[in-house]
Amino acid sequence: MTITELSADDIESLCVGATLLGTGGGGDPYIAKLVARQALEKHGPVKVITAEDLPPDAQVLTIAIIGAPTVILEKIPAGTEFTTAVKALSDYLGEAPAAIMPIEVGGLNTLLPIATAAEMGLPVLNADGMRRAFPQIEMTVFTLGGIPAGPMSVADEKGNLCVFETTSNQMAETLARTAVIQLGLANAISCYPMTAGQVAEHAIADSLTYCRDIGRMLESVQRNEEGAWDRFLSETDSHRFFEGKIVDLDRRTTDGFARSTLILHDLHGSDQVMRIEVQNENLIAFVDDEPVITTPNLICLLDHETYEPLTTEAIAYGNRCHVVGMPCAPEWQREGVMELVGPEAFGYDVDYVEMPS
Amino acid sequence: MTITELSADDIESLCVGATLLGTGGGGDPYIAKLVARQALEKHGPVKVITAEDLPPDAQVLTIAIIGAPTVILEKIPAGTEFTTAVKALSDYLGEAPAAIMPIEVGGLNTLLPIATAAEMGLPVLNADGMRRAFPQIEMTVFTLGGIPAGPMSVADEKGNLCVFETTSNQMAETLARTAVIQLGLANAISCYPMTAGQVAEHAIADSLTYCRDIGRMLESVQRNEEGAWDRFLSETDSHRFFEGKIVDLDRRTTDGFARSTLILHDLHGSDQVMRIEVQNENLIAFVDDEPVITTPNLICLLDHETYEPLTTEAIAYGNRCHVVGMPCAPEWQREGVMELVGPEAFGYDVDYVEMPS
Repeated sequence: MTITELSADDIESLCVGATLLGTGGGGDPYIAKLVARQALEKHGPVKVITAEDLPPDAQVLTIAIIGAPTVILEKIPAGTEFTTAVKALSDYLGEAPAAIMPIEVGGLNTLLPIATAAEMGLPVLNADGMRRAFPQIEMTVFTLGGIPAGPMSVADEKGNLCVFETTSNQMAETLARTAVIQLGLANAISCYPMTAGQVAEHAIADSLTYCRDIGRMLESVQRNEEGAWDRFLSETDSHRFFEGKIVDLDRRTTDGFARSTLILHDLHGSDQVMRIEVQNENLIAFVDDEPVITTPNLICLLDHETYEPLTTEAIAYGNRCHVVGMPCAPEWQREGVMELVGPEAFGYDVDYVEMPS
Repeated sequence: MTITELSADDIESLCVGATLLGTGGGGDPYIAKLVARQALEKHGPVKVITAEDLPPDAQVLTIAIIGAPTVILEKIPAGTEFTTAVKALSDYLGEAPAAIMPIEVGGLNTLLPIATAAEMGLPVLNADGMRRAFPQIEMTVFTLGGIPAGPMSVADEKGNLCVFETTSNQMAETLARTAVIQLGLANAISCYPMTAGQVAEHAIADSLTYCRDIGRMLESVQRNEEGAWDRFLSETDSHRFFEGKIVDLDRRTTDGFARSTLILHDLHGSDQVMRIEVQNENLIAFVDDEPVITTPNLICLLDHETYEPLTTEAIAYGNRCHVVGMPCAPEWQREGVMELVGPEAFGYDVDYVEMPS
């Protein structure tokens, strides 16, 4: 069943789903959940619409946090920067938005647009550009569809504001990232201004529904309901690749990203070792140096006992977890996807690995 | 005599003066001279006005190249980026400019606004914010007067465009500099949008006249006219501190700046050694490790035989030169000047040295 309205009560399942789709990154949705819940309680429910509900030329603007998840966890959003970024971009374009859309349904950027939509009295679009989290602005199905990321705005909570128009979405990422490094690594960004017609053609539809449904299934698992784990895996076409314990964790925040390498030993006592390479998000999982799950498919870590999705910044030595591989949205299956978000896009000399069917 | 109109014929003296006021930096005005001459030949003479010639609320916009002089010398401006930057800022402000003003009369940013004014059919203001060159955006008398550098625009020749609004002029510098490092280190910037009333109150007046007059005096010296050198020194309150030969030259382009250290041996055979520290511009001159000229006063190097002003990027091992100290514009003499453009502002643990009277 699709979503038509979001109230404070819907936030919990969305948050669980968003944490999973964050594939370790996307920022811990916990803070965004508090922000979204507060906004919905204050301003009332937000209407959830599809692109087809709007006139084709209606203006759609996105909102997101840009930065490093490790920083976002400590530098809590002030709140004002998000409406500031949207209003700055709408002023720049000379057109008011008819709806707010998430760029990524995955991580805190799933819930944050809901709070901004509530504050601005706008509906939120049930669509996005990733249906997972990715670390860079250009890594969207919009880029594959030829939609420019600019004009875009970046705002901080102090009153600093940037607007960029660029010749490529890679340059948009470069300019926004270098600005954000100067502005504290946790800022608001509004980009990919699109008409509703462009959203209908290029976006991943029903992402919020997908996210909430995944969240609900995982909540059933967490409540230990009979058959819930198998149902979760089969309904999402996912597979459990490993059950392991974190034995090493190398974490560094460089070039505006939270990078790390995770090493897991097999919980069942075999000699198998899993290694996961992370750049904000989990990007490649190896078993004994053989890649088994690769971006753009999702690598999700879940606590072995509670089935809580684990984020990059929360993972610690000794954590026991399930490592699940989940196929990315079918909208990614088109020309240019590997150059944009495959292993090579992140500098790994690793071939893409198909998900087992 | 003040200037009321600039034609292609006036450019030569202005160029000589601008090179001297560049104090080694500000970009070699040679290229800007070609650009300005071509624009004046194509579009006709440019009117030179004072702030008092405009209604007090008239919009004044600046234009300049931002980057590293060493790069600017090799990455020649396309031309289009300058009008693009001005138009982008005027669109952002929602008000067309009534005049173009240089930010710095010193280096190529003296002549470049003349070309842009010619292309846009606008007058140029006989005023600026430095009456010399400085390496950073916030280093203006405007900052001392509390005028914000933003909103400001940065454009490249390819179609990339940034607009910044910042909470301080230091942050304006930081954001523009990091963007420019990504955009090729030689870009167009329009900043310090002001009303004519603000220009009248805060700018250094008659800078273009000063620059042209200095240029003419130096041309007399170059033609070996009787008493011209002494007249140049006395009319500018300048002093020759050293006659030396460049015996060492350490040059590096880091953090978006051209930095170097010059070592000169006394031409007259004494043991005295002069060292000059450079960050785009010549900032501090030492004789035997004692500072003798310090920023914001001007340290100008002139070829020993031809009296051509020498730029940082043109100086070479073996050059023989006069080192002249010239007092900065009196508008700098106010509270906050040392923190903004004194030796400490550039990280030197050196006290300001008064010019000899």
